[in-house]
Amino acid sequence: MNVDEYIVPGFLANGISAGIKEQGRKDLALIFSEVPARTAGVFTTNCFKAAPVLVDMERISSGMAQAIVTNSGNANAATGAKGYQDALAMSRAAAMGLNISEELVMVASTGVIGHPLPVERIEKGMGPLVGGLRREGIPDAEAAMMTTDRFPKMSCRKARIGSRDVTLCGIAKGAGMIQPNMATMLAYLMTDADIDSAALRTVFSEGIAQSFNAISVDGCMSTNDTALILANGRAGNRQIRRRSREYAPFREMLFAVLDDLCRGMVRDGEGATKLIELVVDGARTEGEARRVAYAVANSNLVKTAFYGGDPNWGRIISAAGSIGIPLPVNAVRLVFEEVCLFEAGQGTAFPADRVAAIMAQETIRVRLELGMGNKGFRIYASDLPFEYVKINAHYHT
Amino acid sequence: MNVDEYIVPGFLANGISAGIKEQGRKDLALIFSEVPARTAGVFTTNCFKAAPVLVDMERISSGMAQAIVTNSGNANAATGAKGYQDALAMSRAAAMGLNISEELVMVASTGVIGHPLPVERIEKGMGPLVGGLRREGIPDAEAAMMTTDRFPKMSCRKARIGSRDVTLCGIAKGAGMIQPNMATMLAYLMTDADIDSAALRTVFSEGIAQSFNAISVDGCMSTNDTALILANGRAGNRQIRRRSREYAPFREMLFAVLDDLCRGMVRDGEGATKLIELVVDGARTEGEARRVAYAVANSNLVKTAFYGGDPNWGRIISAAGSIGIPLPVNAVRLVFEEVCLFEAGQGTAFPADRVAAIMAQETIRVRLELGMGNKGFRIYASDLPFEYVKINAHYHT
Repeated sequence: MNVDEYIVPGFLANGISAGIKEQGRKDLALIFSEVPARTAGVFTTNCFKAAPVLVDMERISSGMAQAIVTNSGNANAATGAKGYQDALAMSRAAAMGLNISEELVMVASTGVIGHPLPVERIEKGMGPLVGGLRREGIPDAEAAMMTTDRFPKMSCRKARIGSRDVTLCGIAKGAGMIQPNMATMLAYLMTDADIDSAALRTVFSEGIAQSFNAISVDGCMSTNDTALILANGRAGNRQIRRRSREYAPFREMLFAVLDDLCRGMVRDGEGATKLIELVVDGARTEGEARRVAYAVANSNLVKTAFYGGDPNWGRIISAAGSIGIPLPVNAVRLVFEEVCLFEAGQGTAFPADRVAAIMAQETIRVRLELGMGNKGFRIYASDLPFEYVKINAHYHT
Repeated sequence: MNVDEYIVPGFLANGISAGIKEQGRKDLALIFSEVPARTAGVFTTNCFKAAPVLVDMERISSGMAQAIVTNSGNANAATGAKGYQDALAMSRAAAMGLNISEELVMVASTGVIGHPLPVERIEKGMGPLVGGLRREGIPDAEAAMMTTDRFPKMSCRKARIGSRDVTLCGIAKGAGMIQPNMATMLAYLMTDADIDSAALRTVFSEGIAQSFNAISVDGCMSTNDTALILANGRAGNRQIRRRSREYAPFREMLFAVLDDLCRGMVRDGEGATKLIELVVDGARTEGEARRVAYAVANSNLVKTAFYGGDPNWGRIISAAGSIGIPLPVNAVRLVFEEVCLFEAGQGTAFPADRVAAIMAQETIRVRLELGMGNKGFRIYASDLPFEYVKINAHYHT
């Protein structure tokens, strides 16, 4: 990894071990913009929102932020009134260290639910954390956010916007497994673009809907899921607005970074070995395509078949047919890459060698055509390996 | 096992190997009533219905049946027009062997989807199958229906109805795992009760709703799921009708047998090690309680925690809070057996030893109180062990 790839003008970052996790692993991360930045956020819709999420949801309404402080190893969720005070204390410590207003600090936690946050360790760690802030610190911040992640999820792109070079970097943690919604997802996007608040909110919501919300069921998230974008304007570009011509290239850059992070999260699904890019089309509505896509993608029988390299199309069509949407059985087609496995109500005499080769791919494109209309939905899914059970059968931070 | 336990007056049964499965395992089952019996059935709602299901759905409308012929090792699903003809041929072979009308033969298949049914083997096996019919043959029929089942699911009860002893025996196959709906469920109930058609249909639908449909998502079943009841009247009891006083004891007996079978199926969930009896109450409607129950019971994170013996209440409340039903966070309570693990928005200081003992139980009663109303729903769930992935990562019949 070339650390110079992950530098965004005006942003400093760091990640250290504060002793929250065991064995000296990094567990405290800080992202800091030298000037207050425009911000937008998307948060979990879970009823049991973690304390830091409650803090951020209040603060995001100002539209401005300058820092994000994150700990791993403890979710500060289901921790009651004390947990909320702890989240405030954590943000206060960061604000004091950075000498900025507490209102400009966003806070996030990830890890085990229901244990008191070790705030003293976080407060004690704040000196070294702030002291080590640097332009090249983004990968360290990412490392300090990771829990069961096997590799960092980072993506950086540049675009020419209004005669200026603009950079956008994203980092994410989360194991986008069977129910990615249940494993905390954190995603932070940093850009030096100058963009107005309305445009930032719009483009960010839209981007999240097409990326992280296309691996996770709507309204179905963990207690801590948080996605934030900070735009500090350092690039000095002509300000991006919703109807300005600078909007499209920014949107394209953001969507590309979100897609990278999102694929990384699915690929890093706890123990996952494969990424299945499932497109359901031929639906009458996008909602219908989405429901079928989730029925297939969330099926453990489908996931284990992909893990085993088994082209078990029967499980896929059975999952699609099981949710109460009446499908025209004889019009439904199922295609793996370019090979049709099911049509006219039955399996085809597909070339076994070619399909075996497809099943061995790391990324497998699957298309399920419903034959009812022209709406579609794409979802990224992972397979279900032994490793998943092993990881999740015991406490882990 | 005492085979005399599984005898129902007027019923004969048998199960043999017809060479559909490998290694000479039993794969062809027959149940026969000496006289035509009143019948009722519940079938999969999957769009991709297997051929035998289509045949049965036509025949059940007559309200009468005399035999059920079943093969394992091949689902005869997604097999097109040929599959439908094969299902008819299978029932015809049984009808000829038994010398009864083809219309009185119900037919079922379970196993791998999308492969042509080896009808010749079934036809060839029909001689020995019919020849071996006997009163004590029910356990053999059960054995011939099993696929990945680790043990037979059978239950037999007697009741005094209208001054006569009435017997009801049930056999079932199916691995009630994470998505029991996707593993074929077959359940056959045999009774010598005399019961009129309307009463039989009513009590059977109601029983299925409270048993097999409380381990499986509504409208979400495999291509082959079939539940049938045959009542041949041999007991000579005063006929049971919906409003007669004989209805209640029959209902009680049927529900007890269905509950036995249903618990057996969950406990035999592919590789399952535990049965979780989850009650969600305090909901405003039963539908709401049901949605929350399924969100928790279907969560792989919850299931793996139970497998690992980990009282991870955070995953349970997070799953409950994730489906868009606004819960009064501080009123929600979670109780394992008699121990409260979560209330007032946070975990309790529960006695670790006692909870560790609970987690080691084979059956664990979990109660989630939502604090919003007085409606509830009970669901049986299994845990998620390594074995599940192993079993499902490869083809199996």
